[in-house]
Amino acid sequence: MSKEFKLHCFAQSGNAYKVALMLSCAGADWESVFVDYFAGMTRTPEWRQAVNEMGEIPVLEHAGNKLSQSGVILNYLADHFEQFGARGENEKREVLRWLLFDNHKFTGYLAAYRWIRSFASPQPHSEVLAFFRARAEAAFGVVDRHLADRAYVAADRPTIADLSMAGYVFYPTEETGFDFASTHPNIARWMDRISALPGWKQPYDLMPGQRIAPRQA
Amino acid sequence: MSKEFKLHCFAQSGNAYKVALMLSCAGADWESVFVDYFAGMTRTPEWRQAVNEMGEIPVLEHAGNKLSQSGVILNYLADHFEQFGARGENEKREVLRWLLFDNHKFTGYLAAYRWIRSFASPQPHSEVLAFFRARAEAAFGVVDRHLADRAYVAADRPTIADLSMAGYVFYPTEETGFDFASTHPNIARWMDRISALPGWKQPYDLMPGQRIAPRQA
Repeated sequence: MSKEFKLHCFAQSGNAYKVALMLSCAGADWESVFVDYFAGMTRTPEWRQAVNEMGEIPVLEHAGNKLSQSGVILNYLADHFEQFGARGENEKREVLRWLLFDNHKFTGYLAAYRWIRSFASPQPHSEVLAFFRARAEAAFGVVDRHLADRAYVAADRPTIADLSMAGYVFYPTEETGFDFASTHPNIARWMDRISALPGWKQPYDLMPGQRIAPRQA
Repeated sequence: MSKEFKLHCFAQSGNAYKVALMLSCAGADWESVFVDYFAGMTRTPEWRQAVNEMGEIPVLEHAGNKLSQSGVILNYLADHFEQFGARGENEKREVLRWLLFDNHKFTGYLAAYRWIRSFASPQPHSEVLAFFRARAEAAFGVVDRHLADRAYVAADRPTIADLSMAGYVFYPTEETGFDFASTHPNIARWMDRISALPGWKQPYDLMPGQRIAPRQA
């Protein structure tokens, strides 16, 4: 029996995890469609034509819609479930502001850094790794300062901005190269609040695909 | 006499150009507030506290609001002027999808590449330059294919998605290192359509700040 939502994803994709986490926390009736990213599936013209011209994961299928970009999907699901959404115009702008910052910098640099550090083959030059680490740390600084006097990113309760920013921080330190508890205490405390949400699970417990040992740093 | 809109910007910021272009094309009553980025203004704690905790340009002041993130500002201005906005839920999602892709990849990688190539001091390693060039080219490929059979990015008319994606492509080839007419014909034709919009001007004609000679490639 087919589920209501189908999420095209794989376990190592933190961008897919953002949506998987939302579906899990909202109690959605959903299933995964495994995308074999490591075998090059998203880079084929066929996949791009049939699923996502941007060549990216996640893609969510629901009620005849095929949606891509995690920020679009999270907004769609917030409307559908009336959970984790913004209330009013000011909050809506604040949520979008952090979604954009997240995609560009917070998640953007952390995801690239983790990839280069742990999985990319061949591994890019060490200077590329250092460049992304510095950019990621600058973004972490902004977020850690922002969270110094608030519990959640964009409102007085968790929103899709929090779920988006949770995309990569819960992967193991051996993959990401960051241990927030020792470097960014406000981010670490916010992570504790996110992981206490009903329905929260780790990325590798929510999405399909073989676990891959990260390259030794 | 103070103008209705104040845009914190400087001539080399393509992210600010996105908003300046919108204000110009919408016929807004606006003025610039020059931000001395090259002197480190956006990196000071004082500026971050007073203007934008994210340390980024653009920031728009209007009617007591202080808005950051170009994607947020473009949505705000589209509502205000009832121009370049999405019509209906499907278009709204399509516009947001391209805004996110733009900030993360299309503009994101081109902006970083141009910066490293032409202005950053000291210049990062050549492998970092090559990495960003390859990422930018991958994003250009997605957009060039998308524009093969459509005139504008997200609708049958120009929207804020187009204005956002116009952020960096109009800077001179000697800065960006890309000449779209010779490599991405669909992007080049789309640029012709954007530059034909009433109110369109080049970045250096819309925003304040000294022109800086790019490093010789």
